[in-house]
Amino acid sequence: MKSFIEYGPNSDFPIENLPYGVFTSPKNDIKHIGVAIGDWILDLNVISHLFDGPLLKDKQNVFKEEKLNAFMGLTKSHWIEARSTLQNLLDVSNSTLQNDSELKQSAFVKQSEATMHVPAEIGDYTDFYSSIHHATNVGIMFRSKENALMPNWKHLPVGYHGRSSSIVISGTPIHRPYGQTLPVEGADPHFGPCRLMDFELEVACFVGGPPTALGQRVTAKQAEDHIFGFVLMNDWSARDIQKWEYVPLGPFTAKNLGTSVSPWIVTVEALKPFAVDNYPQDPTPFEYLRHDDKFNFDIRLEVDIQSEKSPVVTTICRSNYKYLYWTAKQQLAQQTVTGCNLRPGDLLGSGTISGDTVDSYGSMLEISWKGTKPIRLLNGEERKFLQDGDTVILRGYCINEHGVRIGFGNCSGKLLPVVPFNG
Amino acid sequence: MKSFIEYGPNSDFPIENLPYGVFTSPKNDIKHIGVAIGDWILDLNVISHLFDGPLLKDKQNVFKEEKLNAFMGLTKSHWIEARSTLQNLLDVSNSTLQNDSELKQSAFVKQSEATMHVPAEIGDYTDFYSSIHHATNVGIMFRSKENALMPNWKHLPVGYHGRSSSIVISGTPIHRPYGQTLPVEGADPHFGPCRLMDFELEVACFVGGPPTALGQRVTAKQAEDHIFGFVLMNDWSARDIQKWEYVPLGPFTAKNLGTSVSPWIVTVEALKPFAVDNYPQDPTPFEYLRHDDKFNFDIRLEVDIQSEKSPVVTTICRSNYKYLYWTAKQQLAQQTVTGCNLRPGDLLGSGTISGDTVDSYGSMLEISWKGTKPIRLLNGEERKFLQDGDTVILRGYCINEHGVRIGFGNCSGKLLPVVPFNG
Repeated sequence: MKSFIEYGPNSDFPIENLPYGVFTSPKNDIKHIGVAIGDWILDLNVISHLFDGPLLKDKQNVFKEEKLNAFMGLTKSHWIEARSTLQNLLDVSNSTLQNDSELKQSAFVKQSEATMHVPAEIGDYTDFYSSIHHATNVGIMFRSKENALMPNWKHLPVGYHGRSSSIVISGTPIHRPYGQTLPVEGADPHFGPCRLMDFELEVACFVGGPPTALGQRVTAKQAEDHIFGFVLMNDWSARDIQKWEYVPLGPFTAKNLGTSVSPWIVTVEALKPFAVDNYPQDPTPFEYLRHDDKFNFDIRLEVDIQSEKSPVVTTICRSNYKYLYWTAKQQLAQQTVTGCNLRPGDLLGSGTISGDTVDSYGSMLEISWKGTKPIRLLNGEERKFLQDGDTVILRGYCINEHGVRIGFGNCSGKLLPVVPFNG
Repeated sequence: MKSFIEYGPNSDFPIENLPYGVFTSPKNDIKHIGVAIGDWILDLNVISHLFDGPLLKDKQNVFKEEKLNAFMGLTKSHWIEARSTLQNLLDVSNSTLQNDSELKQSAFVKQSEATMHVPAEIGDYTDFYSSIHHATNVGIMFRSKENALMPNWKHLPVGYHGRSSSIVISGTPIHRPYGQTLPVEGADPHFGPCRLMDFELEVACFVGGPPTALGQRVTAKQAEDHIFGFVLMNDWSARDIQKWEYVPLGPFTAKNLGTSVSPWIVTVEALKPFAVDNYPQDPTPFEYLRHDDKFNFDIRLEVDIQSEKSPVVTTICRSNYKYLYWTAKQQLAQQTVTGCNLRPGDLLGSGTISGDTVDSYGSMLEISWKGTKPIRLLNGEERKFLQDGDTVILRGYCINEHGVRIGFGNCSGKLLPVVPFNG
């Protein structure tokens, strides 16, 4: 495949990708749905009339919306037809867009000039805990090597409900929070600025398909109809606050201070060529969690830190989506097993994705092993946890032997100092 | 105060109450906002032009919406003006509505003929754990009398993020769920129908006021501007599933199978005459959680169970909102302490509200003490936990020495059998 839009071999957004996002531009402050291609955005609001396939010709209005929920709420067949229509329209052999200079002028917006927005109304956000290396590391740190994984961990994808309101788009700065902590075990708690600010390297999937009914289960085998696509996610975490507050009901204010997502939703279809074997599961999970097809993906994930004090960027983590023990299909099956209903636009986070070596750990908690093993940035500074002014940049991409690269773009955020507390 | 609408002394909805809800009627299937008065609903969509006070005369459109979020998103001053306008319009001395037979005809709908709906789009739902008796009971059952309360419990209102999609209106039946449990400690988990289905007696508050910004804290002293009103809530719980899944990240699928709310939101203004002393707190909480005014309310709460096998209703619990250790203001302050942003329509559940005697325990788990002390219903049946076909009815009301009664109506739901699992 070759597009008439030109881009280099390192572009995250070739014609094989075509991720969806929501943007505004200097010319138009109304949100439009767009697709990334090279350095450009194809504005689907402007070309909605070109979705003339059998399924979408009566559904063109979904591309006129200010968010992706209506399009997500159609079916997998609709998504596949949309992808095919877009690949045709962008193909170098197709003249419809290429040779209509007026339409082309209005349909393409430079990514560098656009402002990206959270691409969907996220009704509910769930965060899982599906990386066996991450769960083991945290278990060793807070319990012991012998009891690192809780007894339930290999039987079901452990997860918890997160906060939707505080999900923000890449680029949004995050303030270091105030909160309660317990600096000395057994002593009185302390109220003040978080001292152990962390990132979490995650990949999250957006739920698609028509809403399900309360009481309706979706098994892992049925789950693909409900998975629209994936984004990178940084689940900012206040570790000291988390440790004090989380018993017995789980993380709460330590996690709802901000969760960053990358703007471009990479579809399942774009990722399929990069499917790899699922993580071997022992014991075999219950039937509702079983699926035979590959739904694990070779997505290379990297985390950069840039200190405010220098332009030097340090890559502190190289991980991979394929290290996940539980697949997104299994997460979705778990989400619905007791009958919880899904809505298009719901978001399921993977949990921190760590590999089995220090350089692949997906959080500062693990990289610095609770602060006991500080790391050195390329500019000479030391880090145990994040410092004010640090920008955290997550990156993700697939690449195959033919040089085809399916990228996610960046998910970045700068940690700002605390807002002083006045009573 | 006396209204031209007649009602008896036991009505939950006198002119002093005026709770807000959203309804449809046989004549109109578009959702309208209404106010309960006696056995009637006053349709605010039809009389929106009568909100002619200085604050609301330019905001009448909020009463034309299909949900309450826009009205909730105004300010406390707007809510007070709306209440005053409604009390004037309904007063026996006011002729505007009373003597306009055409308007009156279209503005009043019989509650018995209306269908009620979840009154707001609930962006995020948080469930707290603020009853000291409930937390102590659960702590004794699952740990020990000595370690009943976790060390953090008296320092902050413990809470966790819940699921918004599965919040349903009173009257919606709930299916007994399938899920994983661990019948024998140390053995393999089991997958099958929940065996320990429970209700939880809660009161939840709807957040109001303009949305807050990410990073903005709301202290307990500032919280009243963000509390719109209260409903009854039944947080249906699958205890056996909860016990197996909840470590270490909290309750998940055991709680997202359905959460029922009563349809009428009783406002803070209506409850104020029933304010009582806050629960004594020792230790004194941190500054952000402190407020001096009374924000505890003498709301009598009751739970009835009606078996499918008989029309006899048994009241199995008589509790009171005033037993809560943490106030709704303190819950809201905790929700935002790390900078989590609020949106009007967010819901904060109190957690199960138990008193200190068995007949005031707000869940079957406590009433039957983990199933070890079955109770007998008035029809002779025995209960440890809920059985299929049981209808659970929560009721709540305040009453003062002058006989003024501010009621919440019912929050009811019937437990249906499992939907068979087919692969």
